[in-house]
Amino acid sequence: MAKKIIIIGSGAAGMTAASSARKFDSGSDITIITEDEDVAYSPCAIPWVLEGKNSWDRIVMHDPEYYSKEKNIDILTRTKADSVNAELKEVSAGSKKYKYDSLIIATGGKVFIPPINGIDLEGVFTLRTVRDGKNIEACMKKTDRVVIAGAGVIGLEMAVALHNTGKKVTIIEMMDQVIPRIADRDMAASIQKHLEEMGIEIVLKAPVEEVLGDKTVRAIKAAGKEYPCGMVIFATGVRANLDIPKELGFDIGQLGAVTVSPTLQPYKRGRLVNDIYLAGDLIQCQSAAVPGPTMSQLGSSAVRQGAIAGRNAAGDTAMLGPTASPWISVIGDLQIAGTGMSQGLASWYGISIVEGVAEGLTKARYSPGGKKIIVKISAEKSSHRIVGAQILAGEDANGRINWLSSAILSGITAESFLALTENAYCPPTSTVKDVVLSAVEDLVHNLSS
Amino acid sequence: MAKKIIIIGSGAAGMTAASSARKFDSGSDITIITEDEDVAYSPCAIPWVLEGKNSWDRIVMHDPEYYSKEKNIDILTRTKADSVNAELKEVSAGSKKYKYDSLIIATGGKVFIPPINGIDLEGVFTLRTVRDGKNIEACMKKTDRVVIAGAGVIGLEMAVALHNTGKKVTIIEMMDQVIPRIADRDMAASIQKHLEEMGIEIVLKAPVEEVLGDKTVRAIKAAGKEYPCGMVIFATGVRANLDIPKELGFDIGQLGAVTVSPTLQPYKRGRLVNDIYLAGDLIQCQSAAVPGPTMSQLGSSAVRQGAIAGRNAAGDTAMLGPTASPWISVIGDLQIAGTGMSQGLASWYGISIVEGVAEGLTKARYSPGGKKIIVKISAEKSSHRIVGAQILAGEDANGRINWLSSAILSGITAESFLALTENAYCPPTSTVKDVVLSAVEDLVHNLSS
Repeated sequence: MAKKIIIIGSGAAGMTAASSARKFDSGSDITIITEDEDVAYSPCAIPWVLEGKNSWDRIVMHDPEYYSKEKNIDILTRTKADSVNAELKEVSAGSKKYKYDSLIIATGGKVFIPPINGIDLEGVFTLRTVRDGKNIEACMKKTDRVVIAGAGVIGLEMAVALHNTGKKVTIIEMMDQVIPRIADRDMAASIQKHLEEMGIEIVLKAPVEEVLGDKTVRAIKAAGKEYPCGMVIFATGVRANLDIPKELGFDIGQLGAVTVSPTLQPYKRGRLVNDIYLAGDLIQCQSAAVPGPTMSQLGSSAVRQGAIAGRNAAGDTAMLGPTASPWISVIGDLQIAGTGMSQGLASWYGISIVEGVAEGLTKARYSPGGKKIIVKISAEKSSHRIVGAQILAGEDANGRINWLSSAILSGITAESFLALTENAYCPPTSTVKDVVLSAVEDLVHNLSS
Repeated sequence: MAKKIIIIGSGAAGMTAASSARKFDSGSDITIITEDEDVAYSPCAIPWVLEGKNSWDRIVMHDPEYYSKEKNIDILTRTKADSVNAELKEVSAGSKKYKYDSLIIATGGKVFIPPINGIDLEGVFTLRTVRDGKNIEACMKKTDRVVIAGAGVIGLEMAVALHNTGKKVTIIEMMDQVIPRIADRDMAASIQKHLEEMGIEIVLKAPVEEVLGDKTVRAIKAAGKEYPCGMVIFATGVRANLDIPKELGFDIGQLGAVTVSPTLQPYKRGRLVNDIYLAGDLIQCQSAAVPGPTMSQLGSSAVRQGAIAGRNAAGDTAMLGPTASPWISVIGDLQIAGTGMSQGLASWYGISIVEGVAEGLTKARYSPGGKKIIVKISAEKSSHRIVGAQILAGEDANGRINWLSSAILSGITAESFLALTENAYCPPTSTVKDVVLSAVEDLVHNLSS
């Protein structure tokens, strides 16, 4: 029977859930409640807009009217869902109450900002929404010196974007490498070198201590030193937004996100909760690389999860598979990509990994325009199962990281992957033996020695 | 114990076999006997040299002296292996005899030329070696009108190369589509349109009947019509070179190539032959898509097979896995790639396939420079196993076809592939949901309806 579905949140997870529910049941009644003023845009594209390579108009795909007219999906923008009553099955937003048969919570994450002085000064930003982006754009007119706090991929992409508009950019990172959470030290070192050669300053092992200024930011203090700037962007990582899940008493996992069933339903004191589904940055999911939980705070993961949450809210019982969480980022002239286990994650799980590495070219050696590419693949030491991969390249990292993600997701050993893998070849697009195969050969060799 | 290894043939299979044997046993005695004058070059690159985008110097990687000095591998160039005596374990070449412990036959294929009048005229060529390429280059100075007989990928790549040097090019094909052996009709039609828009003439359903001229070619006659030209290049398909295998009485499979064991040894009246290994265009191998034989006349397959033949000749017993035979070609501004089963091959095997198709972009819709991409994936109707894929795109086909090849090689169903597959996303390199996933969704939908 057609259901009344309420979705809280209009990010990639929420919007995909809405479309997916509509596709599954043309008769369901779908309402999205969101604090945001724009919907259906790509937050990942914001650095490129700020750099001038794109525009706000272009990255916002549709306005709320489109969804209302074309898909019969109602969107309440600038509307905060204050609370949920799971017994009465209703959401309170402002003075109004909205009844549901199925509820999807897709409220995403919040940028973690360290609890220090000065974070409320003018010129201090985070980056999640188009509104954030426009505020940063306005501030760019007032200053030439920018500090990015946090050297994750979003921080680095922002650093390059602002550098390319002529700003003097300093990146300040608490850990001792860039992209500390998901990239290995060797890959990160190459990215750091590339950024420094562009003229971007990088300060590592420097926890941010204070933002200085009167009304407006004047400098940031980190590890005892002051860095003058007129703008600070905190890109210090995203934490699950647990406001509603905590209110509802849902179980929170050890990664600080909501534990969900394969159908994306939450648990309350260990018991499955019916008629509520979660998708996006606020859930913990199952790793494809090891039997354990992982976080997958990626746009592509939000879409994958949202599609399942939407179907299930509309009456299906689709299952989310485990995740390798492949990611890619373009940092200046380099692409860095990863999937599955990094060295850091392996430590967290307590497992031992063996690595294979190969360096090659994206095109035949003699073909014009080929770029250097480094592929690293790792296997779990006892099972030989492929559990992770990272790529650093001038181009063509994406197809390869998807390819290696499938290897992780299928649970294949390094030896099987080597025996069962082939590559297409044409001089202007590839080498006769792909660098992925060379890396697997090295891995198999290292596993046996 | 270190073996005396003779390799007949210096193409990708033979050269890789030599390096692989050397790597497995530094003490083995390795000699290559080849009719060719150049070794260690990429024949696939010849069209790009003729177009002026590359040079003979650059596409020949090493000369024979390099192998002698650096790898202790002797190469006898311009030397024809006349016969093999498997009882005495010796190869006769000219007046000399060469003893072996292990023999590798890597004599590749021969371009099939129809038995018609005029094929010996000046200006008639095939394309296998650098020598062939240089002969074509010399002839290019004498004529502006070229006919390519055969619309396979080599024929089409040559057509574009010669067109780009200012020649008037006509392609004459016996079948009713371009790339008839491995590409589906829909993909082929797009390639044909692209070539015609460039100004290349294509004549289908026209078997070549005669090459006309006195000493030098003046025209070619096909399906009753004459096409004036000063050069004809036969790119009419490659047949296994069976001279030595037939002399030795090896079993020939139904595809007209040598039947080999998984260790790449031939059979003689159904019995395994010891101490002889084959690799490259002259063998029939096992398809990864269906339980049946296939041909894999690709440079990348020759390298894969050569590596195993070399190891085994040196004393190992490595096994060649089944093949999806992924291929890719760049035709003007388009890339066309395929793997596993085409519609034509499916008919030959007598199986039914179901297809899923999706069209998308290589980058986020709003990112500059994204190109159109069409992905088609097919599954066997009863098992739902993924058995084939084809891609037509402005860029980035290679990584995706390798990815889909792994899906075929791992024997996964469309439903499993859909559940277990993820993609990395960043606006300048990809879309949030890859077109490969959209194609698999369509496939799963079509399988269930």
